[in-house]
Amino acid sequence: MRTGAEYREALRDGRRVWVMGEGLVEDVTTHPATRAMVDEYVAWYDRHLDPDWQETLLAPANSERASAGWAYVLPKTSADLVGMGRSFAKTSFLSAGNITHTPAYGHLIAMGILTAVQERNPSAKNLADAEAYRALIASTGRFLTFSGGAAPIGHRLQPDPADRVALKIVRETDAGLVLSGKIGMHTSPAYAEDVYVGALNGVRIGDHNASFVVPVGAPGVTTVCRKLAAKDATPFGSPLTYRFDELDGQMWLEEVFIPFERIFFVEPSPEPIATWLTWHHLYVWLAKAEFTLGVALAVTHSLGLKEHDQTVDYLVDLIVEVQTARACVTAAERDPTFTPAGNCVPNHRHVMAGGIALLKARPRMSELLRAIPGSSIVVAPADTDFADPTVAAHLEETFGGGGYTAKQRAALLQLAWDHVSSALDGRESAFELHASGGLPTWRGRLRRGFDDYNALANGVLGAIDMPMPEIDLSNIPAATLAPRRINTVAPPSASTTPTAAPGQPPAQAAEG
Amino acid sequence: MRTGAEYREALRDGRRVWVMGEGLVEDVTTHPATRAMVDEYVAWYDRHLDPDWQETLLAPANSERASAGWAYVLPKTSADLVGMGRSFAKTSFLSAGNITHTPAYGHLIAMGILTAVQERNPSAKNLADAEAYRALIASTGRFLTFSGGAAPIGHRLQPDPADRVALKIVRETDAGLVLSGKIGMHTSPAYAEDVYVGALNGVRIGDHNASFVVPVGAPGVTTVCRKLAAKDATPFGSPLTYRFDELDGQMWLEEVFIPFERIFFVEPSPEPIATWLTWHHLYVWLAKAEFTLGVALAVTHSLGLKEHDQTVDYLVDLIVEVQTARACVTAAERDPTFTPAGNCVPNHRHVMAGGIALLKARPRMSELLRAIPGSSIVVAPADTDFADPTVAAHLEETFGGGGYTAKQRAALLQLAWDHVSSALDGRESAFELHASGGLPTWRGRLRRGFDDYNALANGVLGAIDMPMPEIDLSNIPAATLAPRRINTVAPPSASTTPTAAPGQPPAQAAEG
Amino acid sequence: MRTGAEYREALRDGRRVWVMGEGLVEDVTTHPATRAMVDEYVAWYDRHLDPDWQETLLAPANSERASAGWAYVLPKTSADLVGMGRSFAKTSFLSAGNITHTPAYGHLIAMGILTAVQERNPSAKNLADAEAYRALIASTGRFLTFSGGAAPIGHRLQPDPADRVALKIVRETDAGLVLSGKIGMHTSPAYAEDVYVGALNGVRIGDHNASFVVPVGAPGVTTVCRKLAAKDATPFGSPLTYRFDELDGQMWLEEVFIPFERIFFVEPSPEPIATWLTWHHLYVWLAKAEFTLGVALAVTHSLGLKEHDQTVDYLVDLIVEVQTARACVTAAERDPTFTPAGNCVPNHRHVMAGGIALLKARPRMSELLRAIPGSSIVVAPADTDFADPTVAAHLEETFGGGGYTAKQRAALLQLAWDHVSSALDGRESAFELHASGGLPTWRGRLRRGFDDYNALANGVLGAIDMPMPEIDLSNIPAATLAPRRINTVAPPSASTTPTAAPGQPPAQAAEG
Amino acid sequence: MRTGAEYREALRDGRRVWVMGEGLVEDVTTHPATRAMVDEYVAWYDRHLDPDWQETLLAPANSERASAGWAYVLPKTSADLVGMGRSFAKTSFLSAGNITHTPAYGHLIAMGILTAVQERNPSAKNLADAEAYRALIASTGRFLTFSGGAAPIGHRLQPDPADRVALKIVRETDAGLVLSGKIGMHTSPAYAEDVYVGALNGVRIGDHNASFVVPVGAPGVTTVCRKLAAKDATPFGSPLTYRFDELDGQMWLEEVFIPFERIFFVEPSPEPIATWLTWHHLYVWLAKAEFTLGVALAVTHSLGLKEHDQTVDYLVDLIVEVQTARACVTAAERDPTFTPAGNCVPNHRHVMAGGIALLKARPRMSELLRAIPGSSIVVAPADTDFADPTVAAHLEETFGGGGYTAKQRAALLQLAWDHVSSALDGRESAFELHASGGLPTWRGRLRRGFDDYNALANGVLGAIDMPMPEIDLSNIPAATLAPRRINTVAPPSASTTPTAAPGQPPAQAAEG
Repeated sequence: MRTGAEYREALRDGRRVWVMGEGLVEDVTTHPATRAMVDEYVAWYDRHLDPDWQETLLAPANSERASAGWAYVLPKTSADLVGMGRSFAKTSFLSAGNITHTPAYGHLIAMGILTAVQERNPSAKNLADAEAYRALIASTGRFLTFSGGAAPIGHRLQPDPADRVALKIVRETDAGLVLSGKIGMHTSPAYAEDVYVGALNGVRIGDHNASFVVPVGAPGVTTVCRKLAAKDATPFGSPLTYRFDELDGQMWLEEVFIPFERIFFVEPSPEPIATWLTWHHLYVWLAKAEFTLGVALAVTHSLGLKEHDQTVDYLVDLIVEVQTARACVTAAERDPTFTPAGNCVPNHRHVMAGGIALLKARPRMSELLRAIPGSSIVVAPADTDFADPTVAAHLEETFGGGGYTAKQRAALLQLAWDHVSSALDGRESAFELHASGGLPTWRGRLRRGFDDYNALANGVLGAIDMPMPEIDLSNIPAATLAPRRINTVAPPSASTTPTAAPGQPPAQAAEG
Repeated sequence: MRTGAEYREALRDGRRVWVMGEGLVEDVTTHPATRAMVDEYVAWYDRHLDPDWQETLLAPANSERASAGWAYVLPKTSADLVGMGRSFAKTSFLSAGNITHTPAYGHLIAMGILTAVQERNPSAKNLADAEAYRALIASTGRFLTFSGGAAPIGHRLQPDPADRVALKIVRETDAGLVLSGKIGMHTSPAYAEDVYVGALNGVRIGDHNASFVVPVGAPGVTTVCRKLAAKDATPFGSPLTYRFDELDGQMWLEEVFIPFERIFFVEPSPEPIATWLTWHHLYVWLAKAEFTLGVALAVTHSLGLKEHDQTVDYLVDLIVEVQTARACVTAAERDPTFTPAGNCVPNHRHVMAGGIALLKARPRMSELLRAIPGSSIVVAPADTDFADPTVAAHLEETFGGGGYTAKQRAALLQLAWDHVSSALDGRESAFELHASGGLPTWRGRLRRGFDDYNALANGVLGAIDMPMPEIDLSNIPAATLAPRRINTVAPPSASTTPTAAPGQPPAQAAEG
Repeated sequence: MRTGAEYREALRDGRRVWVMGEGLVEDVTTHPATRAMVDEYVAWYDRHLDPDWQETLLAPANSERASAGWAYVLPKTSADLVGMGRSFAKTSFLSAGNITHTPAYGHLIAMGILTAVQERNPSAKNLADAEAYRALIASTGRFLTFSGGAAPIGHRLQPDPADRVALKIVRETDAGLVLSGKIGMHTSPAYAEDVYVGALNGVRIGDHNASFVVPVGAPGVTTVCRKLAAKDATPFGSPLTYRFDELDGQMWLEEVFIPFERIFFVEPSPEPIATWLTWHHLYVWLAKAEFTLGVALAVTHSLGLKEHDQTVDYLVDLIVEVQTARACVTAAERDPTFTPAGNCVPNHRHVMAGGIALLKARPRMSELLRAIPGSSIVVAPADTDFADPTVAAHLEETFGGGGYTAKQRAALLQLAWDHVSSALDGRESAFELHASGGLPTWRGRLRRGFDDYNALANGVLGAIDMPMPEIDLSNIPAATLAPRRINTVAPPSASTTPTAAPGQPPAQAAEG
Repeated sequence: MRTGAEYREALRDGRRVWVMGEGLVEDVTTHPATRAMVDEYVAWYDRHLDPDWQETLLAPANSERASAGWAYVLPKTSADLVGMGRSFAKTSFLSAGNITHTPAYGHLIAMGILTAVQERNPSAKNLADAEAYRALIASTGRFLTFSGGAAPIGHRLQPDPADRVALKIVRETDAGLVLSGKIGMHTSPAYAEDVYVGALNGVRIGDHNASFVVPVGAPGVTTVCRKLAAKDATPFGSPLTYRFDELDGQMWLEEVFIPFERIFFVEPSPEPIATWLTWHHLYVWLAKAEFTLGVALAVTHSLGLKEHDQTVDYLVDLIVEVQTARACVTAAERDPTFTPAGNCVPNHRHVMAGGIALLKARPRMSELLRAIPGSSIVVAPADTDFADPTVAAHLEETFGGGGYTAKQRAALLQLAWDHVSSALDGRESAFELHASGGLPTWRGRLRRGFDDYNALANGVLGAIDMPMPEIDLSNIPAATLAPRRINTVAPPSASTTPTAAPGQPPAQAAEG
């Protein structure tokens, strides 16, 4: 396992990073816009060397493998999933679910690439490339992130359908392809070393949809990150935002060379790549939910409301959501499925149930945490207000007491605020609705994964005392994942009739 | 395992049964009000002898036990729970979740009595009695049902608080107690052989709350069953109601003798008895949900709607609910807990999440099944309408086609109707809201079972860069289960001021 | 205003009525399947002559009209709508919202026919016919009911698209048309005198979609009613079902003559006809909701729960739904719109908001009324149980007290049961989901009626300090009402590929 | 009507304002933390002189009054309410519902004080004072804001119950009282001239609960405002936050003199004062909802999604919520009630229905606006990014097209972000949950205002063919508004037993 310092050093790879509203970032490890997150990833690596974290992060050796970080295990059993899942849960809680992409997530992507290639009856070379790439990730700790490959909105609105793609081949060389174009939203590219660009990018080679692994530091790549989440003047008022503002971004490519061994032929849909990803999404959402519950509990204590029936009832509302997701993730790991290659996969049916439950619950959970503290949350002081002794004395009267100093109570209220009433929270909400596809996509996945259509339909006919036709509903799970969002391109002449756009690539897909 | 015929014979035990609206039932095995359900229980026993059902119903022998019906296994491992659960699921689906009480459920009650006695540091005799009683149930297949012991509404409104109890001791003999009184709603007493009467009955012996096993056929017992669910003139229109109208009832006792070995000292709350019962409740609700989904799927097929987006969307709504409950029950069995005596218990936290999800989902699930068939469900013909050849020909035109005869399609529509628009469905809904306590009680159980209050509350403090007070919220799970429904007893003088009623027994509790 | 006796006499018009499960009904005024509802309609007419009802049912004379029943007023002002609405509310409450079709509703239909004809730039003759027909309804009190005209499912599944219509012209005469065919679900045809058959019936004359008024008693008409709602042996257990089982039905036509003056050319959609109907739907749903609240309140009183916080909280849940619908209907009448011909229409935007709120609320409202009574509702006795003096004495103990006799309390519990746990309730739920189109249709109506798309979209641009493009979203309200349910017709060869069916008439539309 | 400049000048009244995180503000009209909102209020006054706004803001003269601003009308008729409501709607939309307190709202407070005093059978002097004060507000345009008077959390956790109050009398003089203490959250005190401090403050004079009007600029008053909502570096990314960050605050009083004519005796509950306020709350929430819908519509247009079914379905979800609230407010104004003194009041039952609907809808409405733009909202550029020509050209490719420049589309996406994913939005959500009491309080108000308990309960008994007891449920509306949040004060010895606190003033009440 490499150290955090080694990771930090690896980021000085000549990458070109632009942060919206901040401009060019010369060195992500030192620039104020990015260094805090670099520190979090450094800590992520170093945590594996911390004795207090060994039990959580290290898979014990067994007959098939030496001891290794759970982050890099290719799971073969339900117990592997339980171990991996526990490591995701504990680390995600630290950031209140705000860090959604880690090197461990990158390894899940690499496992997904391998699985997607395996599914396609690939050439030996393509398969070997995928296996080698996953092994590289596992052995070096290189940090990989993911993009579905969809084009940004500007491309999708081009008048000529041929221009609505993300990428185009500029030329081919003996060793690979040279590409240009632009890729839509994906996450943490400023901190990752490779970006997987999925087959929604529009490049086809022969009969194949081509996907690519693009180094962030490759010549011709510009990583364009979203603006920072707005925050208070000091970390006291924005304790999460200061540390956990993982940056989403776009990638702009100008004549970027991709060697053949980093080109993978997969089906257009990113679903096979996502084989383990949705499980990780669920853990991150659960971490956010558990953190919300944790803050709600702490605030309840701090405001002397632990005997107050209505408040406890709100807490139970939160517990119901947390426990439902926990049950689903537990079931997914303990009732798993397997890939044809024999790798163990959290049961998607259970994962989908958990994700759908949390997607529905999220808005109200945030609202509950805004309700529980009462109006105190609105007027909590900043740390700088305590610098004036007179003001500090008055604040002690208005915010202190009941076992808390005013500053302690204010710190907790500010944490609650930053967790559910900040731009960071808004980003997490907006991001999660899109990165993982949101409710329509998760419902579509459950529709496709549910496998008792005919069994249940024919099963109920037993209650009818008459021969009945045999029922076949196999079209329902076979239908495509979700209706794609097709952007209507209005011609410049302002006609209101939408132009049909049969040739354009799908505009909405799992990004993240 | 006894045969169905043996069970039928056992019901001729001199029992006195009154069915509301029908009057006295001389012989439950032959009376039209009760014989269909007797037949279902007979089939339940005989199914254990049916080769097609062996794999589902029989636990294979292992080092600790011979082959046995899953219905009578004392579970020691997660695998035992999975096997038992599967047998509950398959048998409950047959009745669309309408048969909530079976001899298997009775054995879960007996296991609960044993557990409740074990928890109380009992006398050797009381413990031996509980063990012996459970063994008796397992070895004979005797059918036991359950009452929390709460008094009927009339008792609870008595002016004198001392009269608000269910039962009173008339006298004590060398061999036991003689009791009189009345017990509120419980289920299937007309078909059971014993009724467990829980400690809400109000009888105290020394410092102990006493609960009792009362034979249905004992002298002095009258079983008073609710009215039958209204149904069509022929089973064609009410295929479920004709077969699965399990009857709830009250028990009236007049000087009934209870031997000491059938008296068990337990805490007043029925919760320890319910250790395995809520898990079974969840299976029955899930069976109802799966049947709803199954009928919805069949109707979708029958009406040619399987390509219709809105209909498929409704089906996915149903699938989400079914899958969430399945995930929870899967987690409960595969991530179990254990009693101090080492018996394996489905994890209540997961069970509660599943039950709460289904309690919330139920009304809309029924509504969806009413919506999916379109107006055809409203005007579907009866079987007798086909007797007239002219009418039959017209009906073929209006209801036939698309691979279904008119009668086949009508039969399916009537099944849908009987499942979600009949008095049977209304009873199942009303019954489940009360028998298992409903949403407030399930939420209360989750509040008590959830065990991360302090871990989460203190965990989030790690995000605050300042020493913070240690948080203790152990009062929240320690609070009692649920606010009891106290009936306000208005004095005859029509004063509107409620009379305080501190001495009365709790009026609401798990019945079932 | 004609008397009830005159109405009863008018039903002896040679009509041919078949009730599913009952067979042919010789005389609807005396047959047990139908006579109770005839009595209700008789009472409806006679109520207009009852001094106690004058204030509610009679519109005072004004400068434009003599005193008249509100039922037959052509509304010109908001005050007219308020008066009409109040009369609908009071009369609908009597039947707990179960009688959805009355002669007053028939007059709203006639007003809708007139409006629909007016909208089409009609011939003078067609317009005069529509005016004359409405005047006839108003002056005679003749009872008209409504069908959208859609074909039954059997027709819609015909292999030949040309056969998927409801009606076909057999021949034309000097005086009118002769039609044959079958019409899908509509309501109360056994009690009505005319049925309006909307333009979904598929008959076109020249460029016109033709709709018809068909006398129920016309030669060649068979009215086929749905099966009766199952009920208890005595009205004590089914007080609503015995009285208010309005029967839905189909109409079968064999060479039925329709005179030209009863043929109206309208657009295919029934929406213009429904101009006042949805408002009446909302009143009937509100009556059901208010009755639910009323029973919940009465049960709360009867069970001594009026001081019980959780019960009061449930009541407030019900009150919220009732009050929301009341607010919407109040707004609709007091902020009305007008037809081009100057008639006053309840504002559809407000009506839609109210209807959508109640459609969402209904399932949980029923569930709440099942929850509030506790398990007493499950075991309430029938009146016949009181005939046995011993049993009656015991019942007094178990159900009496607190100011109620056992029989009084049982009667109230049975009323609650019949209201929300009976086949009658199931029918009302299923019927309302279809007759008025259900949630998708009501949402579609609101989408079409909402008129601030461009104002709001361009309005927010004021917050942007930059010139912005003008926004035009007029396509959204202009889109058709709702995706139609197209039944996939599987060819006999059992291929699973759906046959495209471009020529078939719309299968789903407002019926009722 | 005074000018904006006159208002601005009036703020230089010696007021002492401290903004959390910013420190002391010498002059609110020039300090960067406060000047933007001062400008908004200046514009509010000047708008009354703008010809384009006359029709919206000015009440035409009638027989009872000269032409006047709707803001200062004492409403006598439904038409007055409609006019006032329209003026609230149009002005609140400008700030997307973020400015909740205006001088017009202040006049509603003054009307509420008058009404509250009138209700108490007051002395002639107290009544005359209240009338004079309202007249003063109306004639001068002086800006009044509102506090319920509750103490901050620190006071409520004091060990001695006597210290849990907000204010104490220091001494009495010939002309008035001298008070010290601290007041919890209220809104816009930095911009108001007077603060009404309600009777929750704990001061009693004789048998009376005393409330006070305190000038913000009075000697001894410190206004302590909450921290600013965090925002982007330029207004482009935070167009709403830069302009509409109305500041909530506390008030600290040290020996502040209150003349007797500014002391009003009222009941402890602020409800009578809120007579017109909840109506205004509803308008502000509706403005936020309409703005959300407006942005959603604009974004739909901008992203070419106006033909996309799922997006249109989301829009209809938003329209349903907007229309429901519009219907309720329309009903409230057109079906009003009257105070005993003859002033016209929006019907609270309808207002409550509307408010409850929006309180439930808010979280999901925000979520929908985060979902509709797709991931483009996450990565939208800042205006400063366009300064670099190369970056600008690339941005044009990724964000331009379809009739929008990249900067126009980015501006719209930033507006969406600022509206539902910013700290400003979080504040609005948290604030509204408390300022107006949140869902429990609004439900409590509806419970108290609903007046058909007995009519409905006895009405349903008509369906029972038997004499029944008369039902009286008048205790339900008579019960107090809502359970108060009592903060458990843990003694320093860390005992977990809550201290009973009978003497403390209510901790939760309508603030704002």
